[in-house]
Amino acid sequence: MKLIRFGEPGKEKPGVIINEIQYDVSAFVQDYNEAFFENDGLMALSAVIKEQDGKLPQVAAGTRLGAPVARPSKILCIGLNYADHARETGVTPPTEPVLFVKSSTALVGPDDNIVIPRDSVKTDWEVELAVIIGKKASYVEEADAMNYVAGYALHNDVSEREFQLERGGTWDKGKGCDTFAPVGPFMATKDEIADVNNLRLWLNVNGQKMQDGNTSNFIFNIPFVIAYVSKFMTLLPGDIISTGTPAGVGLGFSPQIYLKPGDVVELGIDGLGTSKQTCVAWSK
Amino acid sequence: MKLIRFGEPGKEKPGVIINEIQYDVSAFVQDYNEAFFENDGLMALSAVIKEQDGKLPQVAAGTRLGAPVARPSKILCIGLNYADHARETGVTPPTEPVLFVKSSTALVGPDDNIVIPRDSVKTDWEVELAVIIGKKASYVEEADAMNYVAGYALHNDVSEREFQLERGGTWDKGKGCDTFAPVGPFMATKDEIADVNNLRLWLNVNGQKMQDGNTSNFIFNIPFVIAYVSKFMTLLPGDIISTGTPAGVGLGFSPQIYLKPGDVVELGIDGLGTSKQTCVAWSK
Repeated sequence: MKLIRFGEPGKEKPGVIINEIQYDVSAFVQDYNEAFFENDGLMALSAVIKEQDGKLPQVAAGTRLGAPVARPSKILCIGLNYADHARETGVTPPTEPVLFVKSSTALVGPDDNIVIPRDSVKTDWEVELAVIIGKKASYVEEADAMNYVAGYALHNDVSEREFQLERGGTWDKGKGCDTFAPVGPFMATKDEIADVNNLRLWLNVNGQKMQDGNTSNFIFNIPFVIAYVSKFMTLLPGDIISTGTPAGVGLGFSPQIYLKPGDVVELGIDGLGTSKQTCVAWSK
Repeated sequence: MKLIRFGEPGKEKPGVIINEIQYDVSAFVQDYNEAFFENDGLMALSAVIKEQDGKLPQVAAGTRLGAPVARPSKILCIGLNYADHARETGVTPPTEPVLFVKSSTALVGPDDNIVIPRDSVKTDWEVELAVIIGKKASYVEEADAMNYVAGYALHNDVSEREFQLERGGTWDKGKGCDTFAPVGPFMATKDEIADVNNLRLWLNVNGQKMQDGNTSNFIFNIPFVIAYVSKFMTLLPGDIISTGTPAGVGLGFSPQIYLKPGDVVELGIDGLGTSKQTCVAWSK
């Protein structure tokens, strides 16, 4: 299944995509949130789709998409998880996953604007594959880790490099800014993706290819990452783990290239669709 | 007012403390969550207390307390915000606030056990004053920042130093472990605290005084911190900002001292009560 959430920011309703048509399932599902995933909502949704075959209302054309899952308890990200990206940022590839928390308030829809923060001069892009957790995961084994996955989505892990790297302390200042986590267009359930550790992912800025990688180049693949992270904190249903970005971010160019108002970022992953964000200046 | 949440983990109900007696207000308030603070819940609660004077049911003696606010969109923490603590950790005091995100799943009640993670050898304590945000805050001015505060609570920013400092990347691995954020016993509304930038705070381990500081020694005081953080991300009603710890953490001793199963941690802040956690080993 392909899950979407549509409507105005903060008032999104749940839907599904079937044969490229968007349907409204809000008569049957409250939201794609922690309770939904925890209470076998995916199974119930699958039954609804079968029962309502041909009867679900379509979503009006041009309706905004929100992130395909509701704001989770946490968005976790794996840093430097592709060797080529680690090299371009000037660091040695890590020997165990680099983990950071992205503020959940950064979450927006796939085609929402990226707001360049006030005083930002180094807003950058990162195409990433995000994993959505399906059930509570604590100290899970790598061999068992895929049983905790609900699905996957496209994510632009937008990052302000000055805030992240030059303002003292951890990376978190430059990762959690509002609009810095466009996710979607949809969450593909696990069964939709044959081999999640072998998907092409790419990102263009103003039509120019900047990133073009493949998840087969993960340093730490998805089962390893889930097992690893679950040793540090419990993952809740609906939580997001973003799995890192391949080479080609603005920080890696010489001279560096950063986003400015009017720039258009397009990105995609095989089987997970595409998204498109326009950069705008912050305004009160 | 002094707000509490009581009952089993995940099923807490809202209450208040009046003249040191705990009362149940769950007939009038759903929970102390984002919607509560956003919709002037504190004002409504104040009216309920006046109207129901003498008629509110008491909370049964011995009832567990949860964190005094529901799981927020984020728990943000300021690192190294007391010069004496910065020195004991071997770093120069920061020139602007160090910011990190603590996983909201770490939140527990004030007297709940601290679970020492599997394979942890460096679980440490940090008494801190936590600020609870009362309304949406984005790019607020320092002079206006206190208008965004709902209240304050006692917080033990429990930290696994090996996970935090020796496992690569950011601090977040060692800060967000389950049970690593005991908060409470209560949230004191802003009006209860005459000068929040001048409160004694202390922490004992097994009856021995380890930390004894005063918020007058903040490097960055509360209005500055709120204004600063709000430049990097929007603070939502109910969000928690923990303001850093004074000297006396286990990492600062020579040799270092860390928590082990059976250890008892007690902490307190003037006007914000005390809490007490017992350390237990992780078990499946």
